[in-house]
Amino acid sequence: MKRTHRVIAITKILSENPNKTYSLNYFSELFSCAKSSISEDLQIISDIFSEHEWGFIETSYGAGGGIKYIPLIEKEAAIESIEKICKQLCETSRILGNGFIYTSDIMFNPKVMESAAKIFASLFFKKGADFIVTLETKGIPVALLTAKLLNLPLVVIRRESKISEGSTLSINYISGTNQHVQKMSLSKRAVVSGTKALVIDDFMKAGGSIKGIRDILEEFEIEVVGTGVVIASKTGEKKKVIDYVPLIYLEKADFEEKTISIYPNEDIFATKDK
Amino acid sequence: MKRTHRVIAITKILSENPNKTYSLNYFSELFSCAKSSISEDLQIISDIFSEHEWGFIETSYGAGGGIKYIPLIEKEAAIESIEKICKQLCETSRILGNGFIYTSDIMFNPKVMESAAKIFASLFFKKGADFIVTLETKGIPVALLTAKLLNLPLVVIRRESKISEGSTLSINYISGTNQHVQKMSLSKRAVVSGTKALVIDDFMKAGGSIKGIRDILEEFEIEVVGTGVVIASKTGEKKKVIDYVPLIYLEKADFEEKTISIYPNEDIFATKDK
Repeated sequence: MKRTHRVIAITKILSENPNKTYSLNYFSELFSCAKSSISEDLQIISDIFSEHEWGFIETSYGAGGGIKYIPLIEKEAAIESIEKICKQLCETSRILGNGFIYTSDIMFNPKVMESAAKIFASLFFKKGADFIVTLETKGIPVALLTAKLLNLPLVVIRRESKISEGSTLSINYISGTNQHVQKMSLSKRAVVSGTKALVIDDFMKAGGSIKGIRDILEEFEIEVVGTGVVIASKTGEKKKVIDYVPLIYLEKADFEEKTISIYPNEDIFATKDK
Repeated sequence: MKRTHRVIAITKILSENPNKTYSLNYFSELFSCAKSSISEDLQIISDIFSEHEWGFIETSYGAGGGIKYIPLIEKEAAIESIEKICKQLCETSRILGNGFIYTSDIMFNPKVMESAAKIFASLFFKKGADFIVTLETKGIPVALLTAKLLNLPLVVIRRESKISEGSTLSINYISGTNQHVQKMSLSKRAVVSGTKALVIDDFMKAGGSIKGIRDILEEFEIEVVGTGVVIASKTGEKKKVIDYVPLIYLEKADFEEKTISIYPNEDIFATKDK
């Protein structure tokens, strides 16, 4: 019975704190039992997680070592959850004209974005990012949930420099969406030079804002180690960036004909993923 | 051993899907075992969750009945996690002048906002909200994580009406922060008349934007069943709303004297919480 109690509590703690390192001591003190018993508990939990394809529990030894739960999604499950999102996106009532489709309900839905974030966390967990970065507004949920899964902080680049952001660095860039000059601002307090960033955003058309994010990070000497977007539009125009991973391609949204052409990125785990 | 395996998997599923109702059948089919065994498993899990003060597992019978995990935080643990946030907010380097303090790193931090969201979910889970609503930008993380815990969708009111939001309804309101006229816009597609909303935001000064959120929701005949804010400023000015629950009070941030006065709302679970 003791074991049953421990594995429940350990499962709860690890599930809610992915990618956080715990020492064996932490659990052995929590349950007042030998470290060898905890090791056995972890083996059992690890086996069950593997069996259900929920990722794995990594054990590292020595100073700074410990246990952490790395949530991973298998390719098949990933495609399945992307197909679910595509199905929602395909509703023709979403077509707004101008080639736009209404995505806010999906981009702000915690369940849906959790499934997208799980894929990004699986794709990028080995990249050694120090933080996740996005540009406000619709990319925040998926970026936040990815940050949560990877146990990293989130930095949000704002459109306008706000008084509550302190001193900021701003750049102008050409948005591919409407060819207008747009502005983005990053608080100097938000980042540290020499660190590594993982860019997560909701939508990419020509790549203007992704390029802008990279440019503003470069000003702070921050290296971008990966870029993930939920939807990338597959229009003829040349993209301003080449190395990004979209979950979904949007080929066409035709207001007149009431048709949307949208499909999963089947090469998701094969894409060149800088 | 079979029981150990099942309780691990059930704990994982329930932990990651709070406030979602599962049928006993779901689990009995997943593990090919009798419902009575699942009931016993759930009793064990429920006991462990109670012991650790992680909330409880609710079982309801009959049509539409099932099992759900309701995460709850006890008052003592809530105050403790609020005190942790206060400690971070107290760093005098955060003072920006103008009485503002820099909070973006905290408001965008998934761990910190998870702890705030747990408190809001505990406070408001019985209110019968159909969705969570916030005003962009800094309130999105805590609102999203509260929505995730309550298994509800999130609606984000935008500042400007965007082309990607379809047709919107906009209002102007006086911001208490700077006494300027500001605008907020809500997509007509985002909400349904006659539903109930829970308002979650990061910061409230005079209550202008909370009042604005209520006004715009009223246009859609949506009832506000609760309002939670992470920080409320405790200035002398009269608030535009009275019924809200702050986690933290900000009394003063003095740039000249380099002092911040900030403290937890000790009456958190007693506050009149409409």
